[in-house]
Amino acid sequence: MNEIASTIEFQMSLLLFVALAGYLISSNINQSAVVGIILAGIAVGPSWLGLVTYTDFVSSLAHLGAVVLLFTVGLHFKLKDITNIKNFFIALVGIMLPWIAGYYLAIYSGFDFGGAIFIGTALTATSIAITANVLKEMDKLGTDAAKAIIGAAIIDDVLSLLALSISQEIVSGEVSISLIFITILKAAGFLVIGNYFGKFLATNVITRLDRTRTVHKYPEFIFIFAMMVAFFFSMAAELIGLSAIVGSFLAGVSLEGTKLERGLSFREGAEYLQIIFASLFFVSLGVLVDLHALTTELLWFLLLLTVVAILTKVIGCGIPARLYGMDIKDSLIVGFGMSPRGEVAMIIALIGLNQNLIKQDTYIVLILMSLLTTIFTPIVLRNWLYRKNPGNIEPIKKLII
Amino acid sequence: MNEIASTIEFQMSLLLFVALAGYLISSNINQSAVVGIILAGIAVGPSWLGLVTYTDFVSSLAHLGAVVLLFTVGLHFKLKDITNIKNFFIALVGIMLPWIAGYYLAIYSGFDFGGAIFIGTALTATSIAITANVLKEMDKLGTDAAKAIIGAAIIDDVLSLLALSISQEIVSGEVSISLIFITILKAAGFLVIGNYFGKFLATNVITRLDRTRTVHKYPEFIFIFAMMVAFFFSMAAELIGLSAIVGSFLAGVSLEGTKLERGLSFREGAEYLQIIFASLFFVSLGVLVDLHALTTELLWFLLLLTVVAILTKVIGCGIPARLYGMDIKDSLIVGFGMSPRGEVAMIIALIGLNQNLIKQDTYIVLILMSLLTTIFTPIVLRNWLYRKNPGNIEPIKKLII
Repeated sequence: MNEIASTIEFQMSLLLFVALAGYLISSNINQSAVVGIILAGIAVGPSWLGLVTYTDFVSSLAHLGAVVLLFTVGLHFKLKDITNIKNFFIALVGIMLPWIAGYYLAIYSGFDFGGAIFIGTALTATSIAITANVLKEMDKLGTDAAKAIIGAAIIDDVLSLLALSISQEIVSGEVSISLIFITILKAAGFLVIGNYFGKFLATNVITRLDRTRTVHKYPEFIFIFAMMVAFFFSMAAELIGLSAIVGSFLAGVSLEGTKLERGLSFREGAEYLQIIFASLFFVSLGVLVDLHALTTELLWFLLLLTVVAILTKVIGCGIPARLYGMDIKDSLIVGFGMSPRGEVAMIIALIGLNQNLIKQDTYIVLILMSLLTTIFTPIVLRNWLYRKNPGNIEPIKKLII
Repeated sequence: MNEIASTIEFQMSLLLFVALAGYLISSNINQSAVVGIILAGIAVGPSWLGLVTYTDFVSSLAHLGAVVLLFTVGLHFKLKDITNIKNFFIALVGIMLPWIAGYYLAIYSGFDFGGAIFIGTALTATSIAITANVLKEMDKLGTDAAKAIIGAAIIDDVLSLLALSISQEIVSGEVSISLIFITILKAAGFLVIGNYFGKFLATNVITRLDRTRTVHKYPEFIFIFAMMVAFFFSMAAELIGLSAIVGSFLAGVSLEGTKLERGLSFREGAEYLQIIFASLFFVSLGVLVDLHALTTELLWFLLLLTVVAILTKVIGCGIPARLYGMDIKDSLIVGFGMSPRGEVAMIIALIGLNQNLIKQDTYIVLILMSLLTTIFTPIVLRNWLYRKNPGNIEPIKKLII
């Protein structure tokens, strides 16, 4: 029986079954599918039933899922619509505030310098995957607030990874201005060159391939080509030190306007791939959590850290949005939309653990904080800010103005 | 750089790139995509460029690809159309003849008893994946010959795995009639119960789910459910000792007639998954081959074995087909269509190697024999038997009649 449990078939059918259970949970509590799937993942993971372990295979599938998800999200955007000074400003303040607040909270809670720096860094991250999926589910990807969130989240991702490099340099005592400068240059260069190259692929290579005899014979050629581009961009992003999902998002953005005559629609294909693999990704986020490791003391720190994590993003991103002329409701949507830390904070926590910069208990707190912000955001967006009758933001409006 | 080479992004983009190269090769030599993709896989594998290694990740992807491919193939068939006495007869003679011929050829070529038994067993296998893909590409899945091939290949798969069990028992000296009988019963039981259960899922569970609020809100639910069923059936097949792909095929066959109103089409979704993952599967078949291991002596044995492998299937399956009233062209299509050994023989060879029943050189010969039959079949079907003008089978007709 144990032999069967390690087979790909068993793992796939079980993971998909868990995802389906997650959908049923979401449907019953009237939440975004993401919330139910993560909860189902926690239930079958080491926290409760112990049915699913985070094997290499599950990790690979989750990774595929994150890449495909960001690719399909990217297919809804033009890069020039989302990278502007406003979004940069939202991202920057939304990085600084959580970093500083997280650091001081950790110091006052008795963490050492290295641990506190890392906790601060983990708070800077924003997971585009979660918010984008929620906005996609609610069909809000076209709104101004969504564009600001996605744009700022992309810039945030780049800045977070920058913050991670700087943190590692601080903790190991090797910080230098030139190193930071080089990292920034590489990231900017990647976005510009990547977008230019991607547009070239879309307008020249793909449209020409579309007219060839090969595509006439094998319409699936274009779909395979588009997915190859998505993974190639992810690899390039990793190669220069960014997150893989920044790359696949950029690939999606670049191929956004591609027009096809003969080839199979790669948008549709990518959506179908995303349905399966993003589900597996969200299940795996839940499986990574082991609730047993929580002591009462840690639980209190976790709750405090989560409140700080959300508030610093709501303030740090909401106020710049407001300053740039968005109304209060949209500013709140941007603030809460930037709150989920998702897989980015988890990846940062994992790096800290692997390099012995944080201990196991800090790791679990970061994972759970990340998860709580992830669960909280869809609930706020769906039940409060995006409700048909938005009257209940009045008290907050009064509080702010 | 080595660190990047082991990432999922690098492997995915490279594998998809190789698949695309395979399509271009196929398009240029006017062959089935399968042939070009396997050739491209050989080129980038250890035989020549050494760019791709058969990692656990590649192996997992290939496995997913085989399961998804057989599921989509299954979606084109009804079980009662393909499992009949005719197909059973075609499969049975098509197993006995290659087994006996392979055994004697190996004995006369100087192999020991255990090796010869295994070489014979490897010759019994038919890969439905290859032929089904070729027939699918040529849009011939609906023909009588295709139904006979698929039906006989499914029965063949079951009988091959039975032959494998018996071979293992013979070599280890534990053969018993009751063991053989139990294996046969399990296989028959699986097909009957599986099909019944699958039909129940299709007509009761899925059509009911389709009308629920959950599916109304999340149309992707049905697609995830269908894929879960595919992997669950694969797992069940493995659990009772059959090949996983027999299970996913059965799942496809069972869900064939499902009618949906709200849910996303899982047929379309499965096709898109299949485009990506079946490509990766065919690339991996090529990557598994290392042409360097071939000595002149082995090469001669390989060629002889390949000729025997093809002839014994053409005769062993073609004659029963003819006896059951198919015309000569269709009988030849059935015979050649049953020839590709594909992944089934490769799996048998791998089991023999792992259990020390065959040596490394025998393993390579079996892998290459399997590949040659796999490359040969699409060429024969596409360029000769399924040509617009079928006049050129006349000489064979005269020879036979």
